[in-house]
Parts: sequence; structure tokens; C-alpha cells
Amino acid sequence: MKELKVAMLQVKVYDDVQKNIEQLAALLDREEVNSADLVTLPEMWSCPYQTELFPKYAEKEGGELWQTLSALAAKHKIYLSAGSVPEVDDEGHVYNTSYTFDREGNMIGKHRKVHLFDIYAHGQVVFKESDTLTAGDTFQVFDTEFCQIGTNICFDIRFPESSRMLSLNGAKVILNPGAFNMTTGPSHWELGFRQRAIENQVYMIGTAPARDPEAGYTSWGHSIIVDPWGDIVTQMDEKEGIAVATLNLDYVDKIRGKLPLLVARRTDIYDVKMK
Amino acid sequence: MKELKVAMLQVKVYDDVQKNIEQLAALLDREEVNSADLVTLPEMWSCPYQTELFPKYAEKEGGELWQTLSALAAKHKIYLSAGSVPEVDDEGHVYNTSYTFDREGNMIGKHRKVHLFDIYAHGQVVFKESDTLTAGDTFQVFDTEFCQIGTNICFDIRFPESSRMLSLNGAKVILNPGAFNMTTGPSHWELGFRQRAIENQVYMIGTAPARDPEAGYTSWGHSIIVDPWGDIVTQMDEKEGIAVATLNLDYVDKIRGKLPLLVARRTDIYDVKMK
Repeated sequence: MKELKVAMLQVKVYDDVQKNIEQLAALLDREEVNSADLVTLPEMWSCPYQTELFPKYAEKEGGELWQTLSALAAKHKIYLSAGSVPEVDDEGHVYNTSYTFDREGNMIGKHRKVHLFDIYAHGQVVFKESDTLTAGDTFQVFDTEFCQIGTNICFDIRFPESSRMLSLNGAKVILNPGAFNMTTGPSHWELGFRQRAIENQVYMIGTAPARDPEAGYTSWGHSIIVDPWGDIVTQMDEKEGIAVATLNLDYVDKIRGKLPLLVARRTDIYDVKMK
Repeated sequence: MKELKVAMLQVKVYDDVQKNIEQLAALLDREEVNSADLVTLPEMWSCPYQTELFPKYAEKEGGELWQTLSALAAKHKIYLSAGSVPEVDDEGHVYNTSYTFDREGNMIGKHRKVHLFDIYAHGQVVFKESDTLTAGDTFQVFDTEFCQIGTNICFDIRFPESSRMLSLNGAKVILNPGAFNMTTGPSHWELGFRQRAIENQVYMIGTAPARDPEAGYTSWGHSIIVDPWGDIVTQMDEKEGIAVATLNLDYVDKIRGKLPLLVARRTDIYDVKMK
């Protein structure tokens, strides 16, 4: 049986990068965490989830934070999906970016959030990532010793095209760090992860920040892992914590054999494609 | 407020077309049913859900059953979504087809199931529609005095592409008559309707046959209507019955304004399209 042991870190987010890194380093020193194959972090775990702060906290790929993450992955010989952090490129564009490192600390995955979260109510802006962020433009899977894995970020999950393209590109596990809020969380968080798992017959892993009622943006929490039949493997509450689960990757093939959904797609008449 | 009153008929299916029609005619004589704007029937309500029987029960478009349905719609001045029935074309191909009639009895919608239900377990065929059925190859919406409406049939709902294309073509209501079984029903029926409603911000209407433990194929029942936020408007149990609900179509626009998902699709980098 091909097993992937995952540790999700539902951390509290401080307005101090160094404090967030120290918190991560301390968690990785715990045996229940560093004995996992894959450790996952939430969306924007290094920086408060406030659009005006993203440029202030943004670092380049290869910068100090990136190097620390690479070193932590290598130190503990784990795959580290570092949730997401603000990234700035050479032209000064800022992205909501997820880096993934392998057991040697090499960056094997990088996803820039494709669908930015711009929300209105009664014609008023409630939250608008595009004020300060630039959107990504690819969906990529990366190889691991277990299987191919893909990453989306938060709002990307609402668009069936995102997980579909990752699955069609070979992903059997999709990481979707996210921070739903107190309106969308109770209504749509669990359901979205379950349906994406069912329709693509993949494991879905959603790691969220712990709820902080004093933060500008209140996270729903509820970090979750769903199996390819849509059953919930584990779901946390809103508090800080660690959830560890072992995923049976053979179960992906079993479900795909029993209910052959991906091959039953009518690609003779339609398709979902990058342009 | 733009309101659409719907009556779902969760009927028992007999192995006698005439008896199924008489049952329908009697239900349409009831005021709670014929006072609705739209009456919906389940997948394969005129014929037992057994692949070998589909060719035996199949009739041409415009045949006796079709004419009866047209006349019933006109008699009661209702929109009638006649679930699905086996249809045979001039070349002898048999389809799982949904006809929709307007208040004058004109056929305004026709959908042939695009994704046939072929299921295996341990390498053995459990159910294989493609043994006797030919698949449809389009997704079409039709106009009504209320809004545009689209139809899928049962297994079509599992593929996000199906509801996506109907929604992009203008549907605000999607009819998805279906007969999930005792394995897929409890695991995936409600969830599928809810997520398709959420991601496309449409009303989803799923009308199922009542459960008959003596039938060759046991239907999960649980006819359901879900609103564009994903909340369940009504859901039946497994028994014969009628569910009536009034849908507020302005709510579709309200939800689409609050959380603009369809316009946030990244059609600059991907799309879902017919070939």
C-alpha cells in the first residue's frame, strides 16, 4: 500500500514574519510533525491577510523567507507545502504564491493564485485582492516519490476548471491552502473540498489559518482532508492545531476503477483547456 | 419579484407505459400540481430502468407518448419537463432523452443524455447504459417567460463541464432528472446538486423516481431543489410524493452580484468549450 503521511499546520498568523517562522520551526521540531512525509501550511501564514500589507511583506523567490523554508524542508527531510506567502517579482508585481520544497530543500512546485478574491456587497467592495495583487496564469503539477501533486490557492477551488486541469495533468493529491471567511466558510468550505475530490477522484487537502477574532480578516479555519470518494478524512475546528492523517494513494486508483469518471469525460465533444 | 413555481413529481415507475401516463395525468389534475408554472418528472419515468428494456420501450420524437405529453402541457397550461424517456431515431439508435414542453404544448427543449452510466466493480460490469443506448452530443438551453433553462440527465451532473456549459449559455435554472442508486445516492446526490448550484450560481432541480425495492435498479429518490447559494430549498425522502416550491429568480442575480464567480473565470487563460 502506497501511503502518504500528511501533517496540516493550522497556525495563528502574527504581524511579524520572524515570529511566524519561529512558530513554524518549533512545530517542525515536534516528532508528530516531522515524522510526516508532507507538511502543509495555510494561505498567507507569514503575513496578515490584508491587501495593503501584501506589498510590504512581499519577498522575491529565493529571498530570505524562501531560503529558510528550503532549509527547514531539508533539515527535517520532509516535503513542505509552504501554504502561501506574498511574492514580488523583478517588475514589482506582487503575487499570492505557494512554494513547495522536497526533502532536499529543492523547490519543486510554485503556484501563483490564479483567481483573485474580489468581493462586493450592495455595490461596495468588501475585499479586493486585485488592489495590490497580480494573478498567476498557470496550473502545474509536480512529481514526488508518491504521486503527482498540484496546488491551488483558496478562491481557485470555486472554479471547477482549476482542479480539473490539475487532475487531468496527473495530480492524485491537490493542495488548496485557503482562508474562507465567516460567511463563505460555513456555507461552502467543506462542500467545495468534497465535491472537487468526488468529481476528480483525488485527495483534497485544505489548510487554513487558525481563527483570530482580532484579525482584520476572520478565517473560518476548519483545515480539511477529503478522500477521492468524498469522505472527510479529517477536519479541524477553528483553533490552532495540528492534524495528522495517512492517505492511501491506492484508494485513488480503486475509486477511479470502480466509477471511471475521468475517462468518461466526453472529450470528443468538449474540453477544458489552457489557451 | 420574478417567481417560478415548481412541482416535482417523485413517481413510482411501472412496467406499463399506459399506467405511467395515467398516473401522470391524474397527478396533473390535482390543483397543487397544475397551479405550478413548471412540473418536473424523473429520469426514465415511463419505463423500468433496465438497459435491455430501453429499446423495447423507445418511441420516436413526435410519437404517441410525446404527443400525450404535449397535450397534457397544453391542457394544463404548464411548462412540463418530462424527465426522461427512451427515444429511438430513424436509424434505430436509442437515447435517454428529456423533452420539455411549453404552456401551448410546443417542444422547447430536448436533451439526450451525454454521459452514459457505465459502471464496473472488481472488473465486472454492474450497469452499462452504453449496451443499448447512444449518447447525445449537445448541451442546450431554452427560453421561457421566466429565464433560460437547461437540462442534463443524471450522470451528466458528475461532470462539472455539463452544468458549466449550460450556465455559460445563459441558464439560471438547471433541470437534472436522475436516478442515483443506493451506493452513490447517500454519498454523492445532495452534494453534487449543491456544488453545481454554488459554482454556477443557479437553481438546480433534481427529480428522481420513488424507491421501489422490488425494481431491478433501486432509486435513491430524494428529489431536490437547491438555490444559487447552495442552500436546499426542498428535499424529499424516498417515497412517492409531490414537492412544490417557489423559486425567486431575482436571487440568482443577487448572488451573482455579491460573489461574482462567473465573470471571475479566467477566460484569458482557459475555457470550457464545445469542439
